[in-house]
Amino acid sequence: MMKILLIGAHGTIGQAILSELSPRHDIITAGRNSGEVRVDLKDFASVQAMYAQVGAVDAVIAAAGNLHFGALADMTPELMGVGIADKLMGQVNLVLAGQHVLNDGGSFTLISGIVSHEPIEFGSSAGLVNAGLEGFTRNAAVELSRGLRINVICPTVLTESLPIYGAAFRGFVSVDAAKVALAFSKSVEGKQTGQIYHVQ
Amino acid sequence: MMKILLIGAHGTIGQAILSELSPRHDIITAGRNSGEVRVDLKDFASVQAMYAQVGAVDAVIAAAGNLHFGALADMTPELMGVGIADKLMGQVNLVLAGQHVLNDGGSFTLISGIVSHEPIEFGSSAGLVNAGLEGFTRNAAVELSRGLRINVICPTVLTESLPIYGAAFRGFVSVDAAKVALAFSKSVEGKQTGQIYHVQ
Repeated sequence: MMKILLIGAHGTIGQAILSELSPRHDIITAGRNSGEVRVDLKDFASVQAMYAQVGAVDAVIAAAGNLHFGALADMTPELMGVGIADKLMGQVNLVLAGQHVLNDGGSFTLISGIVSHEPIEFGSSAGLVNAGLEGFTRNAAVELSRGLRINVICPTVLTESLPIYGAAFRGFVSVDAAKVALAFSKSVEGKQTGQIYHVQ
Repeated sequence: MMKILLIGAHGTIGQAILSELSPRHDIITAGRNSGEVRVDLKDFASVQAMYAQVGAVDAVIAAAGNLHFGALADMTPELMGVGIADKLMGQVNLVLAGQHVLNDGGSFTLISGIVSHEPIEFGSSAGLVNAGLEGFTRNAAVELSRGLRINVICPTVLTESLPIYGAAFRGFVSVDAAKVALAFSKSVEGKQTGQIYHVQ
């Protein structure tokens, strides 16, 4: 049984991860507006305070992160900055602070998304953020010490999200959040590191 | 003959690009501390001012960008921010501002680097920045209007840089800057878009 910190438990993927992992592990939920612990991933001090509050854990899972979807023609540095500060650096902050406090052999499992490698309209920020997370993960994996591991889950559009995002992902085969949760299980409960798990 | 704006002409790759393209095209050089036009890519207003100064061009080439190489264990949000502001958003700024002013059918050619997909020690920021540029490029390509194109050149370590960076790239086959310059030529003088040209 591992002690697992789950950020974004309130979301569709977070709920599926909770269903998959809670029967076997002790899950601590965290989030911006919900969860047992409140954290703003954009704020490094808030991330450090979260780790101080929960104590040493065996795994950290991120299923959270905002970014701006919108036309390239209307994109500004500020709008690009939303995703860089939140989904990208928010998750990087989890690793930069967590590498010093996780238990030996612990793991980070982050979340990117299919737009990293399959472009869509309005996806310039998502492409940057998601691919950036994947490049960070590959490199962080070769440096983490004490047996720490890091992987990133790259899901396609969720079946549960088609009512909202379906129009942006015409022709994409969707996956259930439960299938995405299996990839989180593989990362947390397996032994690989530096991997991009594509779920599609 | 195209009118080409080359940012970073002073560097090793920039000089090779200049040698490759200047016999056939009209090159305007720009850079932070050298070149016919001075620009700070980190500053969107500076990028817009550069475009206003040079007028409409047919191609923009970036061969510039700083980031922090250093141990993951010592990495901070601020050190990650160096590359995000400079090599990553600096080049994104070139596209966000340039999409409105380039001539029809013009092109952007950016620069990433092999650490996007081949991890090295001290490469967590480089991995994030370079992969982020590639994800941005794939997505921006499907949205650019007026026949505008965008590609990114992803070189391995330069032969000319081995005296400085060789220890970080043991076992990597290096390439001459002149070979990297050919990829810039292919992007600018060819017709593809959304491509990552690996030079290795």
